[in-house]
Amino acid sequence: MDPSSRIQNALETAVARAVAKPAPPRLGEAVRHAVFAGGARVRPRLCLTVAMACGDDQPQLADAAAASIELMHCASLVHDDLPCFDDAATRRGQPSVHAAYGERLAVLAGDALIVHALETLALQVPQAPERSGQLLLTVTQATGMPYGITAGQAWESEPEIPVAEYHQAKTGSLFAAATVAGAVAAGAMHQADNWRMVGERLGEAYQVADDLRDAVGAEDELGKPTGQDSSHGLANAVSEHGLEGAKERLDRLVEEAVGAVPECAGAEQLRQGIQQEMERVLPKTLGRNAA
Amino acid sequence: MDPSSRIQNALETAVARAVAKPAPPRLGEAVRHAVFAGGARVRPRLCLTVAMACGDDQPQLADAAAASIELMHCASLVHDDLPCFDDAATRRGQPSVHAAYGERLAVLAGDALIVHALETLALQVPQAPERSGQLLLTVTQATGMPYGITAGQAWESEPEIPVAEYHQAKTGSLFAAATVAGAVAAGAMHQADNWRMVGERLGEAYQVADDLRDAVGAEDELGKPTGQDSSHGLANAVSEHGLEGAKERLDRLVEEAVGAVPECAGAEQLRQGIQQEMERVLPKTLGRNAA
Repeated sequence: MDPSSRIQNALETAVARAVAKPAPPRLGEAVRHAVFAGGARVRPRLCLTVAMACGDDQPQLADAAAASIELMHCASLVHDDLPCFDDAATRRGQPSVHAAYGERLAVLAGDALIVHALETLALQVPQAPERSGQLLLTVTQATGMPYGITAGQAWESEPEIPVAEYHQAKTGSLFAAATVAGAVAAGAMHQADNWRMVGERLGEAYQVADDLRDAVGAEDELGKPTGQDSSHGLANAVSEHGLEGAKERLDRLVEEAVGAVPECAGAEQLRQGIQQEMERVLPKTLGRNAA
Repeated sequence: MDPSSRIQNALETAVARAVAKPAPPRLGEAVRHAVFAGGARVRPRLCLTVAMACGDDQPQLADAAAASIELMHCASLVHDDLPCFDDAATRRGQPSVHAAYGERLAVLAGDALIVHALETLALQVPQAPERSGQLLLTVTQATGMPYGITAGQAWESEPEIPVAEYHQAKTGSLFAAATVAGAVAAGAMHQADNWRMVGERLGEAYQVADDLRDAVGAEDELGKPTGQDSSHGLANAVSEHGLEGAKERLDRLVEEAVGAVPECAGAEQLRQGIQQEMERVLPKTLGRNAA
């Protein structure tokens, strides 16, 4: 089965457990909307790509890891869009969860997604206790405190924002979890440090690509309002390094990510995959070879 | 070590992991406030009481289970108090988290507490994979969907609220998780159905006691504004059965809980403990023997 179908199936399975009867129907709809209204599935694809490069000897575990990470990502988007944060009316070209279902159900849908992200891994403990235990900690550390997504988001409420820690926690942590989880699911725990570096560099690259898209105003491609970062007064790669400088930085990050890939059965294919993926997430007018 | 100290230590350990450097300091304060500004610790005490009745052969596991359940309870209170839900300025006689730290940090503190509640159990997987796996699912099912706390809270956003499902999910589920988790932590998984019934009855009893306190306006004892349920237009035990009827219902529920306690080393002591606990949570003017 191709990675996209595996991810879709794994997410369907996890969400079906959550929205089954007797779940309150509107909460069920809000959760489905949060997970299935678009989404590029960048992190779970990265997770499966790494698992496959490492042999993917327990695919059901890799699928669970990929789903867990995507559910966490969806939870963070739902809460990020709340009126008290970005107050975003749209997400992925559709109404945000709070715009469609109200603030209460948006808070609860995010909460439920966090719970079910980890439940998806907990269900694997009987079959694969060692790897599942590691996967659970990989995902909790990337999403909680002191340096997961919630910590990253919370830096915005501090009087001073340490930019590197902020981006690392808010974006880098879940990318690093995606690569590490892919490796752990396939039994390559011993290479976790390398895979963490691959994920961190790609997370940063993705952030720079986001800044570039934001700067060129490719609103149609992104499906959400652009110019958000500068309106928050946060430093970003383009405001700091200029358009060309940001593109150079992106190239260097991708190079470093590729260079950090450890020796494994599918290393070469994975290196090429990273290059292609980064082409895909850049706005078309900014293809790296068009520079 | 007595149960209160065990709970306090387990919570301190879990929270210390979360608020360690480089956590954003204000988020760390918000999380500490959410967990340590008061709280009767009813659920974790119930969890440890059951574990001890079942032999408590792995106390570190029972402690983790108790902490996990209390962290989930704290998370649910922080999110319940948000402006979009109860908009409560106080909780346990102190400012609520959003009143003290703002809405953003209240959302994030709740999110982080959910993650760390489950991380606390995930850390036990290497030492006790089978029991930890069961504990993780016990807690996720009690807090997620389709019948955990988030589902319970979400019923308030439906056009019609099924009262029994609503209370069972919003309050009963975590009480049932407390008794089941205590048993599972001590290796008494085979008696989980009995312990679930004990927890469900006690959860409902606690809800009725809450309604009674609400009705007699024991605001000082409770530390939060009273009269909330009736102002939400929700059915409660006193509005449905009257003061005397509600007290009778409470007695019956406690009796049923006591009757459901399965045979185990500490059964008799536990039955007495349940009676004492229910005396304790009632407002003093309503002691069950004062009827």
